[in-house]
Amino acid sequence: MKFIETLREGERVGDIYLCKFRQAAVTKNGKSYENVILQDKTGTLDAKIWEPNSQGIDDFEVLDYVYVVGDVTSFQGALQLNIKRVRKANEGEYEPADFLPVSHRDIDEMYQELLQLIGQIQDPYLKQLTDSYFVTNENFIKAFKFHSAAKSVHHGFVGGLLEHTLNVMKLCEYYANQYSFLNRDLLYTAAAFHDVGKIRELSAFPENDYTDDGQLLGHIVMGVELVGASIRRIPGFPKKLSSELKHCILAHHGELEYGSPKKPALAEALALNFADNTDAKMETFKEALASGGDNTDWLGYNRLFESNIRKTSI
Amino acid sequence: MKFIETLREGERVGDIYLCKFRQAAVTKNGKSYENVILQDKTGTLDAKIWEPNSQGIDDFEVLDYVYVVGDVTSFQGALQLNIKRVRKANEGEYEPADFLPVSHRDIDEMYQELLQLIGQIQDPYLKQLTDSYFVTNENFIKAFKFHSAAKSVHHGFVGGLLEHTLNVMKLCEYYANQYSFLNRDLLYTAAAFHDVGKIRELSAFPENDYTDDGQLLGHIVMGVELVGASIRRIPGFPKKLSSELKHCILAHHGELEYGSPKKPALAEALALNFADNTDAKMETFKEALASGGDNTDWLGYNRLFESNIRKTSI
Amino acid sequence: MKFIETLREGERVGDIYLCKFRQAAVTKNGKSYENVILQDKTGTLDAKIWEPNSQGIDDFEVLDYVYVVGDVTSFQGALQLNIKRVRKANEGEYEPADFLPVSHRDIDEMYQELLQLIGQIQDPYLKQLTDSYFVTNENFIKAFKFHSAAKSVHHGFVGGLLEHTLNVMKLCEYYANQYSFLNRDLLYTAAAFHDVGKIRELSAFPENDYTDDGQLLGHIVMGVELVGASIRRIPGFPKKLSSELKHCILAHHGELEYGSPKKPALAEALALNFADNTDAKMETFKEALASGGDNTDWLGYNRLFESNIRKTSI
Amino acid sequence: MKFIETLREGERVGDIYLCKFRQAAVTKNGKSYENVILQDKTGTLDAKIWEPNSQGIDDFEVLDYVYVVGDVTSFQGALQLNIKRVRKANEGEYEPADFLPVSHRDIDEMYQELLQLIGQIQDPYLKQLTDSYFVTNENFIKAFKFHSAAKSVHHGFVGGLLEHTLNVMKLCEYYANQYSFLNRDLLYTAAAFHDVGKIRELSAFPENDYTDDGQLLGHIVMGVELVGASIRRIPGFPKKLSSELKHCILAHHGELEYGSPKKPALAEALALNFADNTDAKMETFKEALASGGDNTDWLGYNRLFESNIRKTSI
Amino acid sequence: MKFIETLREGERVGDIYLCKFRQAAVTKNGKSYENVILQDKTGTLDAKIWEPNSQGIDDFEVLDYVYVVGDVTSFQGALQLNIKRVRKANEGEYEPADFLPVSHRDIDEMYQELLQLIGQIQDPYLKQLTDSYFVTNENFIKAFKFHSAAKSVHHGFVGGLLEHTLNVMKLCEYYANQYSFLNRDLLYTAAAFHDVGKIRELSAFPENDYTDDGQLLGHIVMGVELVGASIRRIPGFPKKLSSELKHCILAHHGELEYGSPKKPALAEALALNFADNTDAKMETFKEALASGGDNTDWLGYNRLFESNIRKTSI
Amino acid sequence: MKFIETLREGERVGDIYLCKFRQAAVTKNGKSYENVILQDKTGTLDAKIWEPNSQGIDDFEVLDYVYVVGDVTSFQGALQLNIKRVRKANEGEYEPADFLPVSHRDIDEMYQELLQLIGQIQDPYLKQLTDSYFVTNENFIKAFKFHSAAKSVHHGFVGGLLEHTLNVMKLCEYYANQYSFLNRDLLYTAAAFHDVGKIRELSAFPENDYTDDGQLLGHIVMGVELVGASIRRIPGFPKKLSSELKHCILAHHGELEYGSPKKPALAEALALNFADNTDAKMETFKEALASGGDNTDWLGYNRLFESNIRKTSI
Repeated sequence: MKFIETLREGERVGDIYLCKFRQAAVTKNGKSYENVILQDKTGTLDAKIWEPNSQGIDDFEVLDYVYVVGDVTSFQGALQLNIKRVRKANEGEYEPADFLPVSHRDIDEMYQELLQLIGQIQDPYLKQLTDSYFVTNENFIKAFKFHSAAKSVHHGFVGGLLEHTLNVMKLCEYYANQYSFLNRDLLYTAAAFHDVGKIRELSAFPENDYTDDGQLLGHIVMGVELVGASIRRIPGFPKKLSSELKHCILAHHGELEYGSPKKPALAEALALNFADNTDAKMETFKEALASGGDNTDWLGYNRLFESNIRKTSI
Repeated sequence: MKFIETLREGERVGDIYLCKFRQAAVTKNGKSYENVILQDKTGTLDAKIWEPNSQGIDDFEVLDYVYVVGDVTSFQGALQLNIKRVRKANEGEYEPADFLPVSHRDIDEMYQELLQLIGQIQDPYLKQLTDSYFVTNENFIKAFKFHSAAKSVHHGFVGGLLEHTLNVMKLCEYYANQYSFLNRDLLYTAAAFHDVGKIRELSAFPENDYTDDGQLLGHIVMGVELVGASIRRIPGFPKKLSSELKHCILAHHGELEYGSPKKPALAEALALNFADNTDAKMETFKEALASGGDNTDWLGYNRLFESNIRKTSI
Repeated sequence: MKFIETLREGERVGDIYLCKFRQAAVTKNGKSYENVILQDKTGTLDAKIWEPNSQGIDDFEVLDYVYVVGDVTSFQGALQLNIKRVRKANEGEYEPADFLPVSHRDIDEMYQELLQLIGQIQDPYLKQLTDSYFVTNENFIKAFKFHSAAKSVHHGFVGGLLEHTLNVMKLCEYYANQYSFLNRDLLYTAAAFHDVGKIRELSAFPENDYTDDGQLLGHIVMGVELVGASIRRIPGFPKKLSSELKHCILAHHGELEYGSPKKPALAEALALNFADNTDAKMETFKEALASGGDNTDWLGYNRLFESNIRKTSI
Repeated sequence: MKFIETLREGERVGDIYLCKFRQAAVTKNGKSYENVILQDKTGTLDAKIWEPNSQGIDDFEVLDYVYVVGDVTSFQGALQLNIKRVRKANEGEYEPADFLPVSHRDIDEMYQELLQLIGQIQDPYLKQLTDSYFVTNENFIKAFKFHSAAKSVHHGFVGGLLEHTLNVMKLCEYYANQYSFLNRDLLYTAAAFHDVGKIRELSAFPENDYTDDGQLLGHIVMGVELVGASIRRIPGFPKKLSSELKHCILAHHGELEYGSPKKPALAEALALNFADNTDAKMETFKEALASGGDNTDWLGYNRLFESNIRKTSI
Repeated sequence: MKFIETLREGERVGDIYLCKFRQAAVTKNGKSYENVILQDKTGTLDAKIWEPNSQGIDDFEVLDYVYVVGDVTSFQGALQLNIKRVRKANEGEYEPADFLPVSHRDIDEMYQELLQLIGQIQDPYLKQLTDSYFVTNENFIKAFKFHSAAKSVHHGFVGGLLEHTLNVMKLCEYYANQYSFLNRDLLYTAAAFHDVGKIRELSAFPENDYTDDGQLLGHIVMGVELVGASIRRIPGFPKKLSSELKHCILAHHGELEYGSPKKPALAEALALNFADNTDAKMETFKEALASGGDNTDWLGYNRLFESNIRKTSI
Repeated sequence: MKFIETLREGERVGDIYLCKFRQAAVTKNGKSYENVILQDKTGTLDAKIWEPNSQGIDDFEVLDYVYVVGDVTSFQGALQLNIKRVRKANEGEYEPADFLPVSHRDIDEMYQELLQLIGQIQDPYLKQLTDSYFVTNENFIKAFKFHSAAKSVHHGFVGGLLEHTLNVMKLCEYYANQYSFLNRDLLYTAAAFHDVGKIRELSAFPENDYTDDGQLLGHIVMGVELVGASIRRIPGFPKKLSSELKHCILAHHGELEYGSPKKPALAEALALNFADNTDAKMETFKEALASGGDNTDWLGYNRLFESNIRKTSI
């Protein structure tokens, strides 16, 4: 197939894409048309159906895979597809994995790295808890590997939750080596579970949007509930350890105004907060620089970093 | 017995009090003595044991009931007890209820009012949930009636949690009457449970202090967990309703910086936030004015209200 | 007449509306046209006059009542009126009350409720003061009943100031019953007057916009000045009571950053702040939900509540 | 008389001072004594009456002028008076002006400068308004010249309100010369009246403390009321000009969180805010440096300036 | 030449302007055109080249001086130039000074005033330092006189840096006269140098935009580095004085959140902060009022002043 | 010698300590005495000289090494030394290193680790710059190894600046490995120099207090000046690289309100900010837990972490 990032002005397209968005609109002159956004794993493409009688215009909905025929044009410096006709694609005609943004790293390889870190946990209760998710729960493992870590911002792609969790665990491994007063078992367990609530906060791809529960409760509290329910099934799990683990998850955003109902009160909670924040911000910066392509000049004001940003000269 | 609020300078005391605090200290001149705080339901009293050989000085600990003999003096405008001798009191010599601060209202009467409001809940799932706590769970009911709503600040007395919860429910009753778009059943249920986590956040009297879980998790999250666990035992409890109820509890502090991990997204969550805040602040203001006694002049800067405050002239 | 909320795409319209706004504009292609907003009591409607030679185009101004003929079309999901011809309507052709947003409640009925509450005031000075406005001052009463409580946001309709003031007084009645240390007379009087400055801060309908004084002084200070002037005409009005009443009005926004130059220092000022804030926010939430129509899904991010909001499921 | 700033350790004192404060206290060893603060125009002095039977100890109250006999000692680097005996002084024995902190500048001379600036006002209404206070109102003039501009902080001395007002007016004169778009008449009038509310916010010397009205209403609102009442007595005073003048007074603290209910919306309001803030802070800095005596080293953290401060080396 | 501020709708233009901006665009209907902004010292003008084959369209770039022929039209209330043909102008055809916004005051006259103030500096080291820039460094003087003080906001014109610096020095002269504890030499020197870093923070006209160094380091730190380098070349310059001068420059924004890494710790640093802030805000207010032309009504919400603003009525 | 951490109540002491503080004081009863703080590398000890005629009392000053004879007592739970006599110790009687708090790690070993990391820098200019400090400048190396990183808080001991710098560099090494878009050379160089300004901000041990320059300029700006001066001595050092390096140092506190005049605009500046913050906070937490000794209970409210903190249970 012809991936979106390879399209050039003037080309004629005849291929299948995921319809991420569609909405009826009217021009200044009163003419009806359709705004459409198409997506594959390499990016998104604005498209228009200018003719109200275009073939197939009434046959598809958002999140359908559609076969479109049209011409690539350019509008205000960005490419745009002028759709001539369209039809909903049949299952089997396409490979869903081609249409979703996906981690640059190999998902199974990352998961093996994660398992290797989890395998270092010695405490029998924490080991039993992490194994019950990351080693033996097939449904969880499948969902965890496929999920994103965000709707947009950082790690908003298939495998993003895994990649972020792995990065956080590796930072925690570094911290545990460097700051020996940290308890490695608690820190690793908290890191492994810190964002599992995102599996319920965001729907699976291709939708990848906030769920009702995500809006009402958020991934922090849902993560704590999920871990709490599992702990209750482990006989003899120490009460104090259970609260400490939940605290680390609750406090991992570091500040009340960032949605943590408690500030870090344990060293491991503080360390997890640093690991989470460091990886999230570094990845966000990486993505912001990447969106600038080869541009080595200033990229404009970035709201998250509250600064104009640019690539380094060397 | 001679209650603390009735003591006057110059009296000799010989009676039983609860020892709330004791600590060894040394004067500027190097002389050892003991700082003690005694308590009964009418207040607390600073006391000193100046003589290191005072009889009984080594026989009691914090939270013991003690029989003390001593003289009431005055230091910097406040009363102080100069303890001559002391002994630990025996069970049966005292009535614990006399030694704890307690609501001015009758506890059973308040509980009946609460039940009357809970009885108005129509939705079968919410009714089953509230009944499982407030009607049929004897241990919970006993603990709930005895608990305070705070370590200090507002409603920090036996029955305080009940009194505050009742006041919040009555405000919610008013709101549901006045603002008819509110769902009465959800609002009443959320109000009934909004602070139940305090039973685990604060230890029971006479200690009434933050627990380990209280520090690590807080009453908001513990309340949600408790309600969540009970909902799981009610077959058919609607998923969406469960999340809405938990959301109301999570959001009842109204702002992230006040410890709610979510801002109110439902009208009932907003209403609960107003009810909780109104009753907490009005009670705090009442207690602040009461601590000024008959003083009708300015009472000094109050940190919570960020203002000097005084009684109204009419 | 055909009210705006009943119009449907494709209809031809020939009726009178209030012209709320008009401005000349030019299309991308350089063609002149007119942007117009029409209003009746059920809502507003975007309209365009595409033909520069349309009949009557030069005959009307903002805030005129106009008879328009045109076709209802749809642009980006909202209705739009394509005006063919227009003329200024003559007095007598229309009923002004049909063209302004108005309270859903009966205005005279609300006023009677307000009088009943004011009638409970016992203190002779406060009674004389409130009567001099709400009972005997015909001009004031007429203006008060017709005014809105806001330019937009909450209670921005005819009768809005009355409805909000009544709701605040009823909340204060509840508080006075529930928190017996509050002085009922002071609280009721302060509630009755708390927003009277809005009569000068906002011009009367149909304009309902900030006045010069409103921008320079604001309704809080103008309300205090107005009350102060009236108090000076009441012989023997106690000095302290006068200051307490003014303080309640000054402090009713609760925080300096919300425009109150003093924080509440009296219990009644605090109670009034809660009543005002509760009613304003509950009404705003109600209006926000109502604007979503039958939509039971999330309604999008609400800036005031700093949250995505939605209707409750039960 | 022997002024406080001239006292030295080891001296015996026998002179009259103003008693600014007295309170009973008890030593760690249980001995009663009296804490007293004495004042004259050169400063204040901590004093103690160690002997409960000291002659005259029961004969005086706060704000009495007292004749004291005692010895000057040193405690933790500061002088302290060990009072042996005391009696209330008779009127005629002392000159009140000797006992109050007073401006270093000549009060009448400053007032003449102020009048010269006020005399430049050309607008007939503003001229009539300012004359009615600063030229013809004997009581006001007397009070204005004697008042302080603060309880402590800056200009907290007799003549302080005059000195601050004069400095603000002179800064406004400079601004009006430098920024010609400013209206000189409005700016001068606003400057003259900006702090007149302090005459009611602070009681007169020797008390110089917040009044009940000062706490409830503040000098900004009281100043506006005062000016408003006077304007009503001037026939034909333009409505718009009246609001502009009041706005300048309301907005002169510059920020809502500093107690101005409106931000400056007119250039003159902004200029007045700068003049007020500049003079207040420069005077406060001057007083902070002066309190360090000849110390050229760092003077410690200053809370207002949020910095350690010191004198400049050249 | 025909200055931009004199153009009227319907005129044909044939004259030279500075091209401040150009960018290709596409209409809703898919037609290519060019967006251009032209500038002379009286303002800027939006222009369009609708015909892709217009003569000269490929011959010019941003910051070229271009001769354009076209018609003045009106779009949404603002003038627009419809360019018919264009060519790059030759050097000698135009006078660069005609195309840049420039101070209303005479630059050489202002510089003489500045020199007169600098001439008052007595301290030999500070005198040597200021002379080495403002008296003997021809390149610096030329750049300083030509530079703006901002990209937009206040003093964003040729001579703006000089005008602002002079105004700040004159305010400092006033302060030094009025507050005699200020050291005049340090204050004048700090004022003279406080914004010299802007010569490196903003590129010279006609670009007048943030440089790479400006973004990375800012004018405050670059100013300190520049002064520091010069001080090292003056034998015997007192170490303490050097740090005090640098401190004044570092702290002149007054608050950490405004980019000063230190709060004012010296009286001169505080005074400089007031002078800088006063002149910047007064000039900004002046420019905001000026942009409203003869409009005496409210000019709309101003983000910097956080208020709707308007001209004063008298 | 007998180190302070080994002293027990009741012991007689006769040994040399560093006098960190002394001040005359007076008891409540008017008796003069001396407050003294003694220090060795294991901690500090409060001491008193109660007898004004104690031998040697007039012979020593702050920062002298003194031989004291006295008895160890206990006051309010802490040890106190009752000094009987004292004399200034002679050089040679003591080993200064015994009297200062010192890193637990071997200083030379840490320095070798630092050199190994610096040795990885490839860019010739950055290599030349770092070598000119860390490899060839003997005076700098000696001062750098001996300095603390703070007056108190974290790393406030001999070797603290080295230990913190090494930890930050190791974190940066980890980041550079993990986030490959970071430029390792720039990041390492910035990390090596980020706190060198502390050598001038804090005086050397035993004083270890803020210098005049530290107060006026701060270590961030002084570090930039120092690096800037060295860069000027390296021919051909790229201008852009110089600004990027300075930017990383300027921005390493991450927020304007923490004293950085610029927010991070480059990825390396952001990474350095995370490394600095992570190590500072983790070390502070470690020191806070260590100060609690074996206490496994809550340690009380910690102002920096805005939470009560405690050791983890496993």
